[in-house]
Amino acid sequence: MTEVYITGLGSTTFGRHADTLPHQLGIRAARAALAEAGIDPAEIGEIFVGNFVSGVLCGQEVLAGLIADGLGLAGIPATKVEGACASGGIAFRNAVLAVASGRCRAALAVGCETMTNATTDRVTAALNCAMDNLTDGRTGLTYPGLFGLVWQAHAHAYGTSRDQVAAVSVKNKRNGLANPLASMGRMIEREDVAGSAPIADPIRLLDCCGISDGAAAVVVTASDLVTHAAAPAVRVRAAAQGSGPARISGLTGLTSFPATVTTARRAFEQAGVAPADIDVVELHDCFSIAEIVDSEDLGLMPAGHGGGYAAEGRTGPGGDVPINPSGGLLAKGHPVGATGIGQIYEVVQQLRGRHPNQVAGARLGLTHNLGGTGIACTVSILERADA
Amino acid sequence: MTEVYITGLGSTTFGRHADTLPHQLGIRAARAALAEAGIDPAEIGEIFVGNFVSGVLCGQEVLAGLIADGLGLAGIPATKVEGACASGGIAFRNAVLAVASGRCRAALAVGCETMTNATTDRVTAALNCAMDNLTDGRTGLTYPGLFGLVWQAHAHAYGTSRDQVAAVSVKNKRNGLANPLASMGRMIEREDVAGSAPIADPIRLLDCCGISDGAAAVVVTASDLVTHAAAPAVRVRAAAQGSGPARISGLTGLTSFPATVTTARRAFEQAGVAPADIDVVELHDCFSIAEIVDSEDLGLMPAGHGGGYAAEGRTGPGGDVPINPSGGLLAKGHPVGATGIGQIYEVVQQLRGRHPNQVAGARLGLTHNLGGTGIACTVSILERADA
Repeated sequence: MTEVYITGLGSTTFGRHADTLPHQLGIRAARAALAEAGIDPAEIGEIFVGNFVSGVLCGQEVLAGLIADGLGLAGIPATKVEGACASGGIAFRNAVLAVASGRCRAALAVGCETMTNATTDRVTAALNCAMDNLTDGRTGLTYPGLFGLVWQAHAHAYGTSRDQVAAVSVKNKRNGLANPLASMGRMIEREDVAGSAPIADPIRLLDCCGISDGAAAVVVTASDLVTHAAAPAVRVRAAAQGSGPARISGLTGLTSFPATVTTARRAFEQAGVAPADIDVVELHDCFSIAEIVDSEDLGLMPAGHGGGYAAEGRTGPGGDVPINPSGGLLAKGHPVGATGIGQIYEVVQQLRGRHPNQVAGARLGLTHNLGGTGIACTVSILERADA
Repeated sequence: MTEVYITGLGSTTFGRHADTLPHQLGIRAARAALAEAGIDPAEIGEIFVGNFVSGVLCGQEVLAGLIADGLGLAGIPATKVEGACASGGIAFRNAVLAVASGRCRAALAVGCETMTNATTDRVTAALNCAMDNLTDGRTGLTYPGLFGLVWQAHAHAYGTSRDQVAAVSVKNKRNGLANPLASMGRMIEREDVAGSAPIADPIRLLDCCGISDGAAAVVVTASDLVTHAAAPAVRVRAAAQGSGPARISGLTGLTSFPATVTTARRAFEQAGVAPADIDVVELHDCFSIAEIVDSEDLGLMPAGHGGGYAAEGRTGPGGDVPINPSGGLLAKGHPVGATGIGQIYEVVQQLRGRHPNQVAGARLGLTHNLGGTGIACTVSILERADA
């Protein structure tokens, strides 16, 4: 397989972009990524766009074609991919594979979503499209409800406390303050989390990521198109994807998502590295408890220790297992289809040594994007190209 | 690149499947395809699912994960792809590329859609998600309206007559009578078409494909998994994809879709064959006039001659350019995401010599799937493996 490099990044802020459609944000992010890559846009052989609910919330599909045309690239294959909240990560993997397999020398992965124009009720209904609505959806389950159950199961199994879970929100909200792309950063204390509005017991408002608009884009190329013009190149060591049980009755427990475990194993095998080799992680903290479960599923610490690591500060930017220095979904927001590409953006900036919450000496980074009730997952491992 | 073979086919009927969700039909079609391929389902390394409007019409996304899990394959990468009416063709191409690039030895492409549970108004709104709704959609354009304009432009440029266009409907509706998967076959005469209900001048009801439910699936494998158990294998000579202008103001005229022209050129180049070498074609006749435009864009006859070829019977199953012997979208119906895979199904049966409207001695077949206002297109070229 051809080696694949990330040579251009673009992103809008994640937050509110009133009266805007997802592909408009996607075009903006893609133009920035193309400019940074320093290649003729005509080199792009294929576009993959991650998006989840533009049809439902905006009445607009064919986003990949709209973005290709908006970039002056009508003609090339342009595909929207969907795997609920993992849609962005899936777009990245497909763009990487297009170059890795030699069918083009450069490809573009874009993630985009707009949600803030809709009422919270409509957004909740749209997000529930990620459930099996013949089973889980019928019970009245929502995603805050699901992660409330996950929290209770984790607390029961491992004694994970409200204080430990709150430490995740405090860290990510604070990390977000320095990130210009994050709109929901905030200086909070653990008791602020517990005191925020109840959503789905034990989940409180500050345990939740926010409804957001946004887009992010990356250019991936073969080695001969790496210009080093604007930034050090970053090499893709793994771009893995997996799926999991479609409904919660298919899970053997609620303290782990098999899709993450399977996909992470695949990614570490592809890259030939172990969890302990990873310097910086951006993972899918759609709720504070999710960061704890995800980090254990990724093998970053033993099962049941995620809460302790968070409470002890080991997952902060200066800790030994830095997680979500960007602020994660909790502080950046979660414009669903954009999130997976946004994570790639953040980790690449870390590996370039240019992140606002820089992890000193980061050379190997990991992203983790999880969709639905653990039905879809991607894990990517990226490395500084001079490493 | 690894050579890729089609070794298993499955399809539901295209028509009405009341109170059914798209993935339920997809699982049914996929099971049939896996049984026919005669391989252990665990050999399937990846699933791509083509679907367009399940989110909008059914409130259900993550269809790829639901299908993977329904087949007992949770764990493998499962991706929904979308390019409006070309979604099925895009799923096929991605499954082919998964095997061609060597990342798995077998992959599954599924197309599925359910539409008949919704009112015609809701279906029309859902289909309009395939337009640029900042431009074309705002004008009040619908797809019958667009193809009415195309018809008028074609008639103006080439003198194409109502009688010639009606010949397409008559042929396809009659072809559909013999096809057990087609629910809208009918013995009609040209004057029946002109006498049917007006939809969008000059388009009449019998010029339109029908709102339908349905699913189709194909198993593609590397040569070492070709068992010849149930049926002669068919080799994939080309699986091309392209995009086109996002709105009609981007077209230089309304008598041709650049996405078809570009994608067909790519497919013929990949396969190393010319239009004249093709024995049988399944193309995107969403309206009778579309078959004429598509067949000219594919190079099957000179521009402006599509109407004449149809009226003279040259595109019938016994003609020199057999088009849509299945009945096409006009007689099978058009469960949007399923259509592109349904076309592969029909051409493979032709190449196996098992089609109800068999084209004698067919060895090389072509499928053409077109999305939106020509924004997405796929063209595949398939060959009998013993050819």
